[in-house]
Amino acid sequence: MPSYTAPVKDMQFVLHDVLNIAGQDIPGYSDLDADFTNAILEEAGKIASEVLQPLNVVGDTEGCVLENGIVRTPTGFREAFNQMRDGGWTALDAQEAYGGQGLPYLIHTAVNESFVSANMAFNMYMGLTHGAYSAIAAHGSDEQKQTYLPKLASCEWTGTMNLTEPHAGTDLGMMRTKAEPQDDGSYAITGQKIFISAGDHDLADNIIHLVLAKISGAPDGIKGVSLFIVPKLLVNQDGSSGPRNGVSVGKIEEKMGIHGNSTCVMNYDGATGYLLSEAHKGMRAMFTMMNEARLGVGLQGYAQAAVAYENAVDYANDRLQGRDVTGVKNPDGPADPLIVHPDIRRNLMDQKSFVEGARAFTYWGAQLIDAAHRAGDADADGLISLLTPIIKGFQTDKGFEYATAAQQVNGGHGYIEEWGMSQYARDARIAMIYEGANGVQALDLVGRKLAQDGGKHVMAFFEIVKGFIKDNSGNAEYEQAFLTPLKNASKDLQAAAMFFMQNGMKNPNNALAGSYDFMHLFGHVCLGLMWARMGKAAMDALDDGASDRAFYETKIATGKYYMSRQLPATAMHLARIESGAEPVMALRAANF
Amino acid sequence: MPSYTAPVKDMQFVLHDVLNIAGQDIPGYSDLDADFTNAILEEAGKIASEVLQPLNVVGDTEGCVLENGIVRTPTGFREAFNQMRDGGWTALDAQEAYGGQGLPYLIHTAVNESFVSANMAFNMYMGLTHGAYSAIAAHGSDEQKQTYLPKLASCEWTGTMNLTEPHAGTDLGMMRTKAEPQDDGSYAITGQKIFISAGDHDLADNIIHLVLAKISGAPDGIKGVSLFIVPKLLVNQDGSSGPRNGVSVGKIEEKMGIHGNSTCVMNYDGATGYLLSEAHKGMRAMFTMMNEARLGVGLQGYAQAAVAYENAVDYANDRLQGRDVTGVKNPDGPADPLIVHPDIRRNLMDQKSFVEGARAFTYWGAQLIDAAHRAGDADADGLISLLTPIIKGFQTDKGFEYATAAQQVNGGHGYIEEWGMSQYARDARIAMIYEGANGVQALDLVGRKLAQDGGKHVMAFFEIVKGFIKDNSGNAEYEQAFLTPLKNASKDLQAAAMFFMQNGMKNPNNALAGSYDFMHLFGHVCLGLMWARMGKAAMDALDDGASDRAFYETKIATGKYYMSRQLPATAMHLARIESGAEPVMALRAANF
Repeated sequence: MPSYTAPVKDMQFVLHDVLNIAGQDIPGYSDLDADFTNAILEEAGKIASEVLQPLNVVGDTEGCVLENGIVRTPTGFREAFNQMRDGGWTALDAQEAYGGQGLPYLIHTAVNESFVSANMAFNMYMGLTHGAYSAIAAHGSDEQKQTYLPKLASCEWTGTMNLTEPHAGTDLGMMRTKAEPQDDGSYAITGQKIFISAGDHDLADNIIHLVLAKISGAPDGIKGVSLFIVPKLLVNQDGSSGPRNGVSVGKIEEKMGIHGNSTCVMNYDGATGYLLSEAHKGMRAMFTMMNEARLGVGLQGYAQAAVAYENAVDYANDRLQGRDVTGVKNPDGPADPLIVHPDIRRNLMDQKSFVEGARAFTYWGAQLIDAAHRAGDADADGLISLLTPIIKGFQTDKGFEYATAAQQVNGGHGYIEEWGMSQYARDARIAMIYEGANGVQALDLVGRKLAQDGGKHVMAFFEIVKGFIKDNSGNAEYEQAFLTPLKNASKDLQAAAMFFMQNGMKNPNNALAGSYDFMHLFGHVCLGLMWARMGKAAMDALDDGASDRAFYETKIATGKYYMSRQLPATAMHLARIESGAEPVMALRAANF
Repeated sequence: MPSYTAPVKDMQFVLHDVLNIAGQDIPGYSDLDADFTNAILEEAGKIASEVLQPLNVVGDTEGCVLENGIVRTPTGFREAFNQMRDGGWTALDAQEAYGGQGLPYLIHTAVNESFVSANMAFNMYMGLTHGAYSAIAAHGSDEQKQTYLPKLASCEWTGTMNLTEPHAGTDLGMMRTKAEPQDDGSYAITGQKIFISAGDHDLADNIIHLVLAKISGAPDGIKGVSLFIVPKLLVNQDGSSGPRNGVSVGKIEEKMGIHGNSTCVMNYDGATGYLLSEAHKGMRAMFTMMNEARLGVGLQGYAQAAVAYENAVDYANDRLQGRDVTGVKNPDGPADPLIVHPDIRRNLMDQKSFVEGARAFTYWGAQLIDAAHRAGDADADGLISLLTPIIKGFQTDKGFEYATAAQQVNGGHGYIEEWGMSQYARDARIAMIYEGANGVQALDLVGRKLAQDGGKHVMAFFEIVKGFIKDNSGNAEYEQAFLTPLKNASKDLQAAAMFFMQNGMKNPNNALAGSYDFMHLFGHVCLGLMWARMGKAAMDALDDGASDRAFYETKIATGKYYMSRQLPATAMHLARIESGAEPVMALRAANF
């Protein structure tokens, strides 16, 4: 019943009208003209609509099944996965040396949006592989790169990330998985990992597990953790897959959503593993991929809201119910379509203004990652490091909120599984939890990122906002609709940061008790900035005589909505923050 | 894995310390002393914990099954239902003439909270029956009352409500189900109804469907709708169940949650129905039960949040992860419990302060219903009519939000079904939709209730707030912590109402575009009022030398949290409202 059409025009608007990517001084960006990206996005959108989307409900309904130690993915997943491989979609931003196309991470990100909107659970098999590729590319020896990267780039083999253990989630220092050094330089890995996405399946010949474990005698806690490559099938000298390694699936978890992805308990029984990067530097190796991985999860947040929104709009246009109080709109029908009703519009505009703002924010984040990695831009690296927990935490919270809001448009049908709206909410829910639960993102933002490098990056962010406002003042209507609300929201953010500085010294809980609200406050300012940029870009396009006036006028109207209806949240978050730690910490644990 | 313990002490606090029910001049209330209600609530809580709660996950996992036209409920439901019947729990507030205990609706409500927290899907079989009982009690002929009420009171038979059709949900005027008058005075009912909770099952001998349908030749639209009693089995002269009537189950819907309740498509093929109340007055008959039914759904909202909160607190106390930044709290363990972390507390306090505020608000609402029905108090009737959409809409939105927030405390385990936290969120989700989707509640509030009787009831509400503030001023600390925030929030609400009055005349969309925010703004003011009352009651108890000081101090601290951290939302809602209709209505339908 649900459908998906990639919003290519909206994506192109962000890439070219707003970010002007072809004009950026980042290696590889000068090739990214509008025709080129349009061709890629159209093609990706087509596959998303025609191949991935129809399997979304199938994946949800069938789930993955463990039979005799083998995991079977839902009907059609294998064929679709082969199509993705054959089309080269798995290796857009992999290095050409390893069979990739060497495109910027930004292009991978924009393409990924369609795939995630169409079928999040399916896309995770590729997403985890992308993560494993990045880890080995960044930290592997030449031999490791030669052995694994071409096959991970093509998704001939897939990858996983093994961090969590039953008693050790956020606090990975407590992990118990052991790595015993062997005579041949390898390690024998023993322990149990849980919540392993794409942990086992029938889509690829081999699965390359990246596993955090402690080498015997390692320092206590997080500083004693190392990262290992543990293939499901040992790799022969000629690079082909060989005999089974000592790793097996304990069970598949029954989850609230993303049923199409096999979330496994993985048991390592003396499995052969190869050290990736240096001993005891496992967390550092994980951290280098973290911005990308978390941006990818932040994308899942808004991408689920995006497809849910699309289907809610369809329903609101089709479903006849009640009459427009200001005058009948569908006199020949028994009732007017839902979309005439102000509260339906209020709901849809909340969704739309978030989704489009988050898309711009995410693409900008991907551009910063490219600037850092491809152009060695340290400022960009610092800035994206600051913004990453916001992209992840704020966008997944809001993504779930709006996937749920979209479900509401469909009324009772939204609660019935066959309409597909429930799945968007259930699938979106996980993005708030994995890759660092959102409370941990808020802690990372306030406890680490804010003060990083002497607070340089948050100051740079404020300068960007200030500079943008200064450079674009002059048009009274634009100022009133966009710049003034942005300025006010930014002031709230500065006041919150100031509150933390003044009170966090006395008691760190004064900052930590406000961390979650700060993440949301910051998120609104970021989306406010993106909407100010989008509003300006749309005005410029209209001034330049753009032919599709309705498109740009819609951007301006949607931006105005965000500024007037969403940004007022910043004052609420500030008030919560400024109430300090006392109300939060008042109770003894026994009195909750 | 999940558990439930009824919060009897908190319930008692609301009933006696806050509402002082035994002192109210409402027939039946003078018997409700603290010992009496404590005994009932303890006993109900025991059944909830021991009988209903263990079946909650069973119901979710097994669901209901349609086999050869017969619906089978999950394992254990029949036995539990018999226990509820045998214990007299189905008929607490039914009239003694029909085998009930004649207790106030408030007692039914407080008892119901435990049952809903423990097993919402199960409780719905009784809840729908309660609704059918009320409808027939209010509108039935003497013969109808004699025939149906004793068996509905005892749940020997159960009831359903049949409103929705595939193309007619909120807009019931479009319904197509027909009622053909028969020679014997009955009607032949033909049509299809969907989303019928408890539509069929194996828990009772007979099911009494209340069905909205149009008598041939009836006026168009909602004014041509009549209400019928359509038993699943025709009733013999002696009152026993006879042969099958022409009603059958089309299918059981696959839903996001409440799997333990059979949500059916019901087909009526010339089924024999009996007019309830007058012809074409079906909606009026439904409306008389609406306050009760919607209050019951508002209770579902916070009751799911309550049990989810309870389990999240358990997890936060048990799960060791990370260290308190202000100093290790569990030096002998590998880590401190989650509950030391400020952001975990922020989350739990949001939940706790909502749940306890909503409980007080709901019990107060039930008391108003008793005042209206038992004491003929027209002011109480008007006030509860105003507050009902808030109890339903605000509390179910927040209930779902906080059930989801509770799930977040459990991290990855919150997403795994075996931990039970996902079910609370999935079950809570329906309460935002059925019994009038929350957008419709907002419309009812702003479009109907606000101006009802010349705006008398909303003015009465403001007088209650004003009077409470005036009567309880004098203690500087209490004023600052409770009364000042309540006053400010109430000012925001008045400003919003003023905005509607001034701008809604020009264009009703100026009011309707703000209706949802108004419902939430109003909800916060109501919970703010309840917390001001609870804070005062707790202070009084401490002044009176109450022995359990920690209990009352916790109430005060939780109230302070609500006032300082939740009430700031009112300013945000006001800002959204005051932006008017323009941003909401700007787009043409094609441009969404």
